[in-house]
Amino acid sequence: MKKYTDINDLENISKTIQEAIQLKKNPYVFENLGKHKTLVMLFFNSSLRTRLSTEKAAKHLGMQVMTLNVNDAWNIEFEDGTIMNLDKSEHVKEAAQVISQYADIIALRAFPTLTDKEKDTSEIVLKSFEKFATVPIINMESATAHPLQALADAITIEELKTKKRPKVVLSWAPHPKALPHAVANSFVNMMQEIDVDFSITHPKGYELNSEVTKNTSINYNQEEALKDADFVYVKNWSNYTDYGKVSNQDTHWMMTKKKLGNAKFMHCLPVRRNIVVEDAVLDSENSVVIQQANNRTFSAQIVLKKILENL
Amino acid sequence: MKKYTDINDLENISKTIQEAIQLKKNPYVFENLGKHKTLVMLFFNSSLRTRLSTEKAAKHLGMQVMTLNVNDAWNIEFEDGTIMNLDKSEHVKEAAQVISQYADIIALRAFPTLTDKEKDTSEIVLKSFEKFATVPIINMESATAHPLQALADAITIEELKTKKRPKVVLSWAPHPKALPHAVANSFVNMMQEIDVDFSITHPKGYELNSEVTKNTSINYNQEEALKDADFVYVKNWSNYTDYGKVSNQDTHWMMTKKKLGNAKFMHCLPVRRNIVVEDAVLDSENSVVIQQANNRTFSAQIVLKKILENL
Amino acid sequence: MKKYTDINDLENISKTIQEAIQLKKNPYVFENLGKHKTLVMLFFNSSLRTRLSTEKAAKHLGMQVMTLNVNDAWNIEFEDGTIMNLDKSEHVKEAAQVISQYADIIALRAFPTLTDKEKDTSEIVLKSFEKFATVPIINMESATAHPLQALADAITIEELKTKKRPKVVLSWAPHPKALPHAVANSFVNMMQEIDVDFSITHPKGYELNSEVTKNTSINYNQEEALKDADFVYVKNWSNYTDYGKVSNQDTHWMMTKKKLGNAKFMHCLPVRRNIVVEDAVLDSENSVVIQQANNRTFSAQIVLKKILENL
Repeated sequence: MKKYTDINDLENISKTIQEAIQLKKNPYVFENLGKHKTLVMLFFNSSLRTRLSTEKAAKHLGMQVMTLNVNDAWNIEFEDGTIMNLDKSEHVKEAAQVISQYADIIALRAFPTLTDKEKDTSEIVLKSFEKFATVPIINMESATAHPLQALADAITIEELKTKKRPKVVLSWAPHPKALPHAVANSFVNMMQEIDVDFSITHPKGYELNSEVTKNTSINYNQEEALKDADFVYVKNWSNYTDYGKVSNQDTHWMMTKKKLGNAKFMHCLPVRRNIVVEDAVLDSENSVVIQQANNRTFSAQIVLKKILENL
Repeated sequence: MKKYTDINDLENISKTIQEAIQLKKNPYVFENLGKHKTLVMLFFNSSLRTRLSTEKAAKHLGMQVMTLNVNDAWNIEFEDGTIMNLDKSEHVKEAAQVISQYADIIALRAFPTLTDKEKDTSEIVLKSFEKFATVPIINMESATAHPLQALADAITIEELKTKKRPKVVLSWAPHPKALPHAVANSFVNMMQEIDVDFSITHPKGYELNSEVTKNTSINYNQEEALKDADFVYVKNWSNYTDYGKVSNQDTHWMMTKKKLGNAKFMHCLPVRRNIVVEDAVLDSENSVVIQQANNRTFSAQIVLKKILENL
Repeated sequence: MKKYTDINDLENISKTIQEAIQLKKNPYVFENLGKHKTLVMLFFNSSLRTRLSTEKAAKHLGMQVMTLNVNDAWNIEFEDGTIMNLDKSEHVKEAAQVISQYADIIALRAFPTLTDKEKDTSEIVLKSFEKFATVPIINMESATAHPLQALADAITIEELKTKKRPKVVLSWAPHPKALPHAVANSFVNMMQEIDVDFSITHPKGYELNSEVTKNTSINYNQEEALKDADFVYVKNWSNYTDYGKVSNQDTHWMMTKKKLGNAKFMHCLPVRRNIVVEDAVLDSENSVVIQQANNRTFSAQIVLKKILENL
């Protein structure tokens, strides 16, 4: 593997999932693989799970980890040909090349603006680092994708499924703040690739990018959509058409124990209780969010492992 | 040992002190004990000594250390049953369970509000992590206790005492800002447990929580209290009755070389010179504050060691 | 070597440069030298290259690294005899002594005020740590010097020179913000020590401290100065006489491909494109800024190695 910027970089998803499940049993077995190798983690945005799980994954593989909150250092310019006389003190051309010399792998988090659709869609931060860095890039959540999360989600479904082809539903939830589409996008991509009966439910007008959803079934009736589901992935995203707007906060879309039935409840966390999902769900045995978060370590680790093997 | 949230978690204080003094002679002797074990340090508040000494202690034991400034990541909700539609994006129930999966031990710093006495007394942050985490918790200074400091203080007294039962006085000092009671509380607790002649001196009205001081002698006359002291621990705390208020800045309570006499001067640091204590004391051989700070490494290390042995 | 606060601490510069070039070929060969040794990096100011390269250098030598953004912890008092009743909560006397107990080497970054010439020239932060710390100090850029950068620059020139005594020119460039003199000062110092034909060009009135430039040739005519240069080091600094002022932003001083000719282009980074230097230079093969940044790792490593050998 040469990079992991979206789930298409995985050559064989089901094999990768099985390998991650194996790693989990004995996390330090490949501890020599990362010896004398350095992971540099660059955060343009804050992080809890991603920071800790990715660092832990790297250390399982014996890597050294250096972390930089980019905004504490410099403002980086991404546009080509600019006269840099304002607040940006370094161009990504230099930044990416320089950091590549201190790193064997660069992992990067850069959220969308949610105000400039074109800029977000172009993935200017991620793509610029991909272009100018001379080492492999891992996406720790970009403007439009969160492939480490999606891989952790797929691992969780594989571990917990009780039938060959479980029914999985992605169900939109209300939220007071405008949130990115990255988690939803990558989850949709992943579900399209693995053997599940997958559909999406959300209020009319809340369609994700159609280039992502493709021919995935969308149902505006949540109750109908959730019927006989085995896994329900609940997630808010802001409006994609009316870009970045919170045009619906309809509390009826909150996930409840009643709606969930016997399905497993999934969420990438952090989650707002009694807004996105009621306490009764999160505090029940049907919630698998903690296991999902644990699988973040192993999705990062299998990705790092495959990249290290290819260095 | 299963946790270290206050000094009552120490099973045998004098034995622990001796073991810490032994560790100091050869800090890396148990380097294999922490192999493949991870300490996650969570800071809700800033730190210099605690951060560096605790990380150093963990590395002496061969542990991996991951540090998170919590407020850089998320605002955490601690109340039960809240509708999380404001600024808190994650509940401690999830946060503590998730971080437990990336950690073998969690160390935590969370200062009091000094405005909400009930909330501070309930130790909501520390207790919530203790409740929901699935790994041992170490208190790196909470609303009401700083047990790593108190253990370092006891180690320092043990190293320096020249008589079997030295006289130790805790002497209040003025300070321009409202400071917590944690250091004073844990020091009082510790002195009640070890073989010293202990008393407290402070201005009238500056009584600490009586559930902490119990039957410890309190003297409002500083000069009288300090007479023939072997160790004088100087520390400001804000008013406990008129909670969190700076109701006294009487400079006469500052520690001076004259008042100190031949006693050793102790303070947890950071200390404001010529407010809490005059230069002449800190710059004299009677000051043992640097040695105290060094012992922070070994108080943390003996605690980590005992918890690791019990994992 | 007992410290590295300026380039005069190097006992034999050309030998040191050769040793750094050797280290680069096999960075981990002295991995046992730093075993059980800790580097504490203190940042009073932000950093990208210095933070990553110095940490990497230390890990090449097997050291443990702890990093502290000082301003996140406490405000430190540097003046002697102050009554500390304002915003400073700890005196450097305590801070330096305490941190020395957690560190085998302390590396420090502290930029100038650029408003108080006397204070900056006295190097109060660096000198105070040097005075009160009980372990060796490394300067990661102080008010007036950046000796790790200057050593990396000298390594780069040595690697790339095609004649015994190359012509090296330091050429001032415009910049919208007031920048320190540290990089320029240390580069001048270094060029005075190694076998190069060195001169400086800058607008009249932009003279560096004459105690630094000594008898180095200064030419106010940039075109004339650059003639037949082998290496051109471009750097902005604010006015030294009219201290810290941006009294000239003359865009004619920007480095261009035409002016540069066949010379190698050097800069310490970060660099503002099309202000300090035009895109055409940075994107050409004549630019060696990325190699310079890489050599930061090896300048730090040879310095750490020499200090470790002397502990």
